[in-house]
Amino acid sequence: MLFLIGLGLGTKDLSALALEEIKEADQLLLETYTSFIPKEYADFIARQAGREPKQIKRKDLEDDIKHTVAMAKDKKVVILVPGDPLIATTHSIILNEAKAQKIKCEVIHAPSVFSIAIGESGLDVYKFGPTVTIPFWSDKYKPRSFIDSINKNLQNGQHTLVLLDIDQKNSRPMRISEAMEIMMNAISEKSAVSAETEILILANLGRHDKEIRQVKLKDMNSLSKVLEGKVLSLIVPGELSFAEKDSLYRVLSNP
Amino acid sequence: MLFLIGLGLGTKDLSALALEEIKEADQLLLETYTSFIPKEYADFIARQAGREPKQIKRKDLEDDIKHTVAMAKDKKVVILVPGDPLIATTHSIILNEAKAQKIKCEVIHAPSVFSIAIGESGLDVYKFGPTVTIPFWSDKYKPRSFIDSINKNLQNGQHTLVLLDIDQKNSRPMRISEAMEIMMNAISEKSAVSAETEILILANLGRHDKEIRQVKLKDMNSLSKVLEGKVLSLIVPGELSFAEKDSLYRVLSNP
Repeated sequence: MLFLIGLGLGTKDLSALALEEIKEADQLLLETYTSFIPKEYADFIARQAGREPKQIKRKDLEDDIKHTVAMAKDKKVVILVPGDPLIATTHSIILNEAKAQKIKCEVIHAPSVFSIAIGESGLDVYKFGPTVTIPFWSDKYKPRSFIDSINKNLQNGQHTLVLLDIDQKNSRPMRISEAMEIMMNAISEKSAVSAETEILILANLGRHDKEIRQVKLKDMNSLSKVLEGKVLSLIVPGELSFAEKDSLYRVLSNP
Repeated sequence: MLFLIGLGLGTKDLSALALEEIKEADQLLLETYTSFIPKEYADFIARQAGREPKQIKRKDLEDDIKHTVAMAKDKKVVILVPGDPLIATTHSIILNEAKAQKIKCEVIHAPSVFSIAIGESGLDVYKFGPTVTIPFWSDKYKPRSFIDSINKNLQNGQHTLVLLDIDQKNSRPMRISEAMEIMMNAISEKSAVSAETEILILANLGRHDKEIRQVKLKDMNSLSKVLEGKVLSLIVPGELSFAEKDSLYRVLSNP
């Protein structure tokens, strides 16, 4: 049997059910697609499971997926995944393969950036348009479609959750200065998003040192230093109701 | 200090960190806004915490919010909440009150229907427009705005997560037959949604007996019996990519 277990965003976000299952695993794999699982979390898991999980890259997992799933035929194989296991779409590959091999697969959910970011922002969950991801740009590939989606949401009065891409080669998240540069280059005079647009920056969500700030797009750079090394997401707010303004005021005021 | 702790959707979805905190609580409150927490989950919590949590209705919590928050001045007060604590917008009232009384408040997240439903559907998370809730209708109050939102999402090729309202007086979720009746009455000839629209029905998400089915709006009634007593959400799918068709096929095929 195969288990896909979410680790959430914090340092002890895996669920009580997940705690039970990892203790009984024959194979314990930790998908370190991102290196964002703090050492204390990895240590906590090892202590709970009574062994070190075997770290695998997402690429290895995908290349070797037939073999990994086949192992689950007569063993209990647990794959630990940052965030919620099903929000990262790549994991549907695992579920499809398990289906093809007729191997039972159980998913144990965990908090996702998708719901945590929206909840922590204080903004109305019913007013979020489609989420986007800012991709890294290369000399040859400079996709701008994420700005079109944000523009469309803004024109509809909707908020946008903006996730930042991961540099897979160097296993690090996009920096705030990089996000700003790509956004500044992606906007045009016709964009609803401009250099003056206020952006919410959400850092280290789900952890004790989480913080939420609001700055203009053109000023995001000024936070480079304080946000260095943190896991970031952005929200581009649309129209704000009175209740949302109240909540946002609370969220942005110092504790 | 005040803790808002999410219980998620399953029967052991609270996190490892939450498990530690409930053991040290001076006051342990369980918000039974819904009666959807299965008895085995309530028992599990009582066993872990070493005491029965005090059950409170959401209305009592709101009416008595100043007092409840004030208790946290010199005690550790834990409020357990179904799903994720911040997705239910009412809980921002608690956070605002804690801020006003200058009482530190920590939120421990849990899986939300918001991310679980989208993940389990196999549909692309980036293609969901704003979520809606179908409200109960009364003789005097028959709001149709949720259909306008679904129509708009469909016109944009987007999927819609459709949550079902809760009958607060009787503490029970909306039945599939009620959801169908309200939807059938809310659509018009101009709606993008019609009686022929295919609807995904997601039942008991996050639990062992979860199931996902697809039926036409006009046929939802036919599932009344098999879905009786289950916690339901709906998804109205928009345009489907090839990859989404593949995943949806897997999701809908029997295990």
